[in-house]
Amino acid sequence: MKKFTFLLLLQSSILFAQSADELFLKQIYSSALTQSSCYSWLDDLSNKIGQRLSGSKGAELAVAYTKSQLDQLGVDKVYLQEVTVPKWVRGDKEQAYLQVEGKKISFSICALGLSVATPSTGLSAAVIEVRSLDELAQLGEAAIKGKIVFFNRPMNPEFIETFRAYGSCVDQRSSGAREAGKLGALGVIVRSMNLRIDDLPHTGMTNYGDTPLAQRIPTAAISTLGANQLSSLLKDNPAATFYFKQSCQTFADVTSYNVIGEITGSQFPNQIMVVGGHLDSWDLGDGSHDDGAGCVQSMAVLEILKKLDYAPKHTVRVVLFMNEENGVKGGMKYEELAVKNKEQHVFALESDSGGFSPRGFSIEATDAQLAQIKIWEPLFEPYLVHIFRKGHSGTDIGPLHDANIVKVGLQPDSQRYFDYHHAANDTFDAVNKRELELGAAAMTSLMYLWDKTN
Amino acid sequence: MKKFTFLLLLQSSILFAQSADELFLKQIYSSALTQSSCYSWLDDLSNKIGQRLSGSKGAELAVAYTKSQLDQLGVDKVYLQEVTVPKWVRGDKEQAYLQVEGKKISFSICALGLSVATPSTGLSAAVIEVRSLDELAQLGEAAIKGKIVFFNRPMNPEFIETFRAYGSCVDQRSSGAREAGKLGALGVIVRSMNLRIDDLPHTGMTNYGDTPLAQRIPTAAISTLGANQLSSLLKDNPAATFYFKQSCQTFADVTSYNVIGEITGSQFPNQIMVVGGHLDSWDLGDGSHDDGAGCVQSMAVLEILKKLDYAPKHTVRVVLFMNEENGVKGGMKYEELAVKNKEQHVFALESDSGGFSPRGFSIEATDAQLAQIKIWEPLFEPYLVHIFRKGHSGTDIGPLHDANIVKVGLQPDSQRYFDYHHAANDTFDAVNKRELELGAAAMTSLMYLWDKTN
Repeated sequence: MKKFTFLLLLQSSILFAQSADELFLKQIYSSALTQSSCYSWLDDLSNKIGQRLSGSKGAELAVAYTKSQLDQLGVDKVYLQEVTVPKWVRGDKEQAYLQVEGKKISFSICALGLSVATPSTGLSAAVIEVRSLDELAQLGEAAIKGKIVFFNRPMNPEFIETFRAYGSCVDQRSSGAREAGKLGALGVIVRSMNLRIDDLPHTGMTNYGDTPLAQRIPTAAISTLGANQLSSLLKDNPAATFYFKQSCQTFADVTSYNVIGEITGSQFPNQIMVVGGHLDSWDLGDGSHDDGAGCVQSMAVLEILKKLDYAPKHTVRVVLFMNEENGVKGGMKYEELAVKNKEQHVFALESDSGGFSPRGFSIEATDAQLAQIKIWEPLFEPYLVHIFRKGHSGTDIGPLHDANIVKVGLQPDSQRYFDYHHAANDTFDAVNKRELELGAAAMTSLMYLWDKTN
Repeated sequence: MKKFTFLLLLQSSILFAQSADELFLKQIYSSALTQSSCYSWLDDLSNKIGQRLSGSKGAELAVAYTKSQLDQLGVDKVYLQEVTVPKWVRGDKEQAYLQVEGKKISFSICALGLSVATPSTGLSAAVIEVRSLDELAQLGEAAIKGKIVFFNRPMNPEFIETFRAYGSCVDQRSSGAREAGKLGALGVIVRSMNLRIDDLPHTGMTNYGDTPLAQRIPTAAISTLGANQLSSLLKDNPAATFYFKQSCQTFADVTSYNVIGEITGSQFPNQIMVVGGHLDSWDLGDGSHDDGAGCVQSMAVLEILKKLDYAPKHTVRVVLFMNEENGVKGGMKYEELAVKNKEQHVFALESDSGGFSPRGFSIEATDAQLAQIKIWEPLFEPYLVHIFRKGHSGTDIGPLHDANIVKVGLQPDSQRYFDYHHAANDTFDAVNKRELELGAAAMTSLMYLWDKTN
């Protein structure tokens, strides 16, 4: 009988907690959908500042802008964290064409991030098209030497989540130039990481590894439409010469900043819950989805908690990381200083998959921790956030390695992400206000539930 | 022991069925994402034909085009079903302005569908702003007579699903002119049904009910941006005169068609499973989301089943209904003929909520039927289609009332739907190829599972 009473009490206390949580989530969503500044912050970041590549004027302006906005939220601390970042500059608009029977057929290309330039007069060579790094290796030096290698494996449309298609394809972009260079190639052209067929080239980092500077070969992305046309032209004209020219340049490293704001925890001020995105962006568009969206959503978490007068038990800290795109120096510096300052990180949430309708969370945690989080799934069902599962969280929070830390990535709908990713159309108009706000609300809700329960 | 063996057998047969279904759904999704014609059909409907309002040239071309495409699929029967539809024509571009201190401040408006015209010189009157039909009734004839009534209740952003916000707001558009007319108003301006603040007016049907023609007052929608500006100007200038002019006209009814194609059932040819959308669209954009998407997805169901050599047990029939937007004459005629021809409809699926990422199905069925369908939820989880619940299915399949029929509506993500709904930006570029195809795959999967199981 006693046990029965206890169970009843337990059950009713769980029911009560559930309904208090339901109510608070409703307030969070209401605040996000009617009062949040996140869309207007993104408007400013996109339209007043624009591209924010590490070391650029835009990055500098974005640091100052977001710090001033955090200052205005009236949180407990706002500060900058110095980070040394690479400075790579694209230079003049790239040029490319295929010479076929005396005609020059032009293509839309863009230098990959951290690529070296071509000679100032450009680079001409015959083209060899391959589908993979394996095929490149099998062809070997005899077939590759003196050529431009054209990596043309499309993203596989059969993956339902487009990030999986990206993951199974991006080795061409990240390692193509390094591996082709070892076999004596003169340059590398890579099909853009885009499922859509259009004429926008998509940039992204290439990784030369420890290849000495003098041996690095220039590499660029070609639009998906261009890749299809080039492939088709090469079938009929296998000996045609491809020309491309780019003047990108790497300068000495410069000083930049992570931007940080926090509400000090009322019970566990030394236990830190991080929420963040990355402030830098590629230079072709305005970085509105990647990752202006994640930054303003993270700032909105603090804004919403403040508006609702919620005093977190743990310190809730927003971190806008610098340099995710070409070095992750911000994430690494953040972790280095956390260790040095003996900070304890208990939870980290990153939004870096675009500002689309949120679908769920991708969670790095033990089974027991995951089970705790999955208990909250029913609370998110009215908001159509259904998917809670193990998976990659985020690149910037990747270096955090406190014992027992739970790391989470917001998972928005991924279908349109690679239409914009690293391309000139990653602009403010590609982000829907409600979708952005719903992501901020889902993030705030998860932060609240974790804070309250632990 | 015997019972145990039986259970084991039962379990393994369920497992086998499950895995055969998993495999078939995988083939359906693969076919939809790599081989479907639906996106190119939509391109043609949007860009070669364009708007398809009942009785228009576009509607006529769309009937011929979709019939010819169904013919090419090599299904068992393709035919047209005659429907008498209204013919309403917008006429010249509408004009509107507020006269304030000798200045004319212009607004973007569009006549509501089936509205009468203003006098040819336009209509001028003082404006009274109201938030609801209730408020209108309370104000009464003394306040309303001789005025232009401006209905300005915004869609409520706090609803997570935007269709609920629409549902709680659209009475202003459908009944505003009828009710204001009874109180002696001269005209009605309605805030567009759009959650976004922009300068596009959104049309849609107004319903005069049995108001005699001579007593009908003209009504138009104003953009959300315009509504905010007008409201703000009226606060400072309550006696300002609003002017609008529209020349829309209703002609005699004309003959149009539902377009039908079907695969005859191998076991139950007289039991019909319908899948459809509506072929007509409003006249401002190209009707790409509303409802070109639903039409081409429905056609894709037949295409995919044919490609996969699936011979359905029941007759699978695609119906592209005419005149959903301003009369539902196609849906009513379809039901009338079904009764006359003693057809038995067992299942109906409509896609008319836009070509966005599919999230689930909204189901009209008995609890037992719903339970049968919900068993399939796990099969849809890999495709991120999670929500199976009771709710409205579709307007065109609404008139079907066979005993035991299951009626289902595809539920795509709703966040962006009202950005485009009935407006000039409902064009092909607003539809993402993968999102459209994923909807077609989800629809085909549900049709397959229901056919196979019943």
